[in-house]
Amino acid sequence: MRQILVIGIGTGNPEHVTMQAVAALNGVDAVFVLDKGYDKAALVRIRRQICERYITARPYRFVEAPDPERDRAPADYPAAVDAWHEARADLYEAMIAGLGEDECGAFLVWGDPSLYDSTLRIIDRVAARERVAFTHRVIPGISSVQALAASHRIPLNRIGAPVHITTGRLVAEGLPAGADTVVVMLDGDPRFDHLDPDLTIHWGAYLGTADEILRAGRLGDVGDAIREARREARARHGWIMDTYLLRSPTRS
Amino acid sequence: MRQILVIGIGTGNPEHVTMQAVAALNGVDAVFVLDKGYDKAALVRIRRQICERYITARPYRFVEAPDPERDRAPADYPAAVDAWHEARADLYEAMIAGLGEDECGAFLVWGDPSLYDSTLRIIDRVAARERVAFTHRVIPGISSVQALAASHRIPLNRIGAPVHITTGRLVAEGLPAGADTVVVMLDGDPRFDHLDPDLTIHWGAYLGTADEILRAGRLGDVGDAIREARREARARHGWIMDTYLLRSPTRS
Repeated sequence: MRQILVIGIGTGNPEHVTMQAVAALNGVDAVFVLDKGYDKAALVRIRRQICERYITARPYRFVEAPDPERDRAPADYPAAVDAWHEARADLYEAMIAGLGEDECGAFLVWGDPSLYDSTLRIIDRVAARERVAFTHRVIPGISSVQALAASHRIPLNRIGAPVHITTGRLVAEGLPAGADTVVVMLDGDPRFDHLDPDLTIHWGAYLGTADEILRAGRLGDVGDAIREARREARARHGWIMDTYLLRSPTRS
Repeated sequence: MRQILVIGIGTGNPEHVTMQAVAALNGVDAVFVLDKGYDKAALVRIRRQICERYITARPYRFVEAPDPERDRAPADYPAAVDAWHEARADLYEAMIAGLGEDECGAFLVWGDPSLYDSTLRIIDRVAARERVAFTHRVIPGISSVQALAASHRIPLNRIGAPVHITTGRLVAEGLPAGADTVVVMLDGDPRFDHLDPDLTIHWGAYLGTADEILRAGRLGDVGDAIREARREARARHGWIMDTYLLRSPTRS
């Protein structure tokens, strides 16, 4: 039976990979790479670095495929996601079918496969089609949420309090009522003017890499500077991956 | 200057440690261990295994200290936490002061240091006292939230939807209004009878280890079986670490 591994590789520091990931990679015949419309070259390069550095046991092949185009501002968001998942499923199915009967292939996922990543949904879709037989296993990785907290040396939660992880799209409508700590992912254009300026923000980009940028402070004081730093870094690198945490003003 | 590392070690599988953690551990003079009132022997053993397996570069010492007693059912929860943090800070300060001027010490933290762990707060407290000078750095680790999702091979979030991470204490009062996915940590006695039986639950204990137990299904169908499995496993092992995810009935 073909085996598929879905491996979280962390946020750009090759040393984010776990010993479990390294052990698994050393049993792999093929490494599959598709990227997500950011600067593909940089992201593919990091995956190559990880493979070159840590796969030492046996030869493997690196299989890149062009990512299906995705409508970034669709009128019907769920329908657009569905169409894009279907196109990706075609590609994944072909990649998996390209393995020999007893071979093992790995998808290397940025961050952790469980957070705002489509790989597991697409693999379930391929499995449901039942056109190619395979088993699969997930190896967790360091997410940008954790990398953000680690670089700022902060806990995510206040004592005994919850943590809400959400998207830029949802935060554009405001924070959830009563939210204590909110982590925002996938915000392509953070706007802060509709939010309480007394919130504390911890922001980070290129987390864990040599290019890491960190900013923190009262949102009303540092919000504009963060937007400016983000714009400048994005222009310079050609791409950006960032995330931020908002905390309600300290309770007594 | 003394250096302190706060290293996330994952949920009990020694292979959860990252390459970054392994590299850092190989520069350590002392490994500090305090545990949290679970079965200490099992948890200290896993930390020892990690050190024995991965620290190969140089000698190090393993420094264990008795953990301050903690009131588990206090009348005043914040005051009890504060008193316990203060007692831990005394201990941490003594451990750090026990390092030579240029030595490096590491605290190995279960899961990830950012989620429901007190180590970073206590280190900030020691730093604020200014009685022993040190720098510190945080190395993220695989949290039980990620290990749960990986073992069940599921994404945490629905497409474009948020994830709410909370505690057993808070969930005892009900789920937050409009919650889509809720991950519950630190629930010493999960009760499900006040929750919608049509929720889907994904539960896991001893995640990532050879003793791992997984259960999933409609809460009304599997809730009692999970409570029973938990009770039985806890009695057998003498301790348990588990977490679960609740998902609202599928939206159209």
